[in-house]
Amino acid sequence: MAEQRAKRNLENVVFVGKKGTMSYVLAVVTQMNQGSPHVMIKARGKAISRAVDVAEIVKNKFVTDAKINDIQIATEEINTDEGNVLKVSAIEIKLMK
Amino acid sequence: MAEQRAKRNLENVVFVGKKGTMSYVLAVVTQMNQGSPHVMIKARGKAISRAVDVAEIVKNKFVTDAKINDIQIATEEINTDEGNVLKVSAIEIKLMK
Repeated sequence: MAEQRAKRNLENVVFVGKKGTMSYVLAVVTQMNQGSPHVMIKARGKAISRAVDVAEIVKNKFVTDAKINDIQIATEEINTDEGNVLKVSAIEIKLMK
Repeated sequence: MAEQRAKRNLENVVFVGKKGTMSYVLAVVTQMNQGSPHVMIKARGKAISRAVDVAEIVKNKFVTDAKINDIQIATEEINTDEGNVLKVSAIEIKLMK
């Protein structure tokens, strides 16, 4: 049960990276059309701008009844292969129908 | 009176653009140290990631009693010189002491 819930939660997350914006828009729209009432859009570093684009495009063009429920920003630490610790900003945008 | 308030409000805004992150960090820290209880950090397009960096650095390193009060994202329309309308994402991060 807990495992199922964990999987389900992971399915509701879209990590925005270096691909084109529309790939992530499609991923979010697909999840919402499959019945997820909310989708979390996450990104780090320079991909943060793209995550905002994704949320705005989904809301304005594809799922017009979706609303931005919550936005959080944070600093995450990444351990590099060389053993250094890098700090990088992160964003989480929660879209809800 | 209304004019004064308008000026005061404008003073509480830091627009993040293409300069180095620390220039904007300094601008925000200066405003907070001059007694502004809140500062609005605004950015558009690719500068959005930098705006998040600015907010996180101010909060974690310089004004440790500051909190992120509110984050809004939106789509803004820009009229180009050629008469076209460009849509661009924007962010507003409200930092509060």
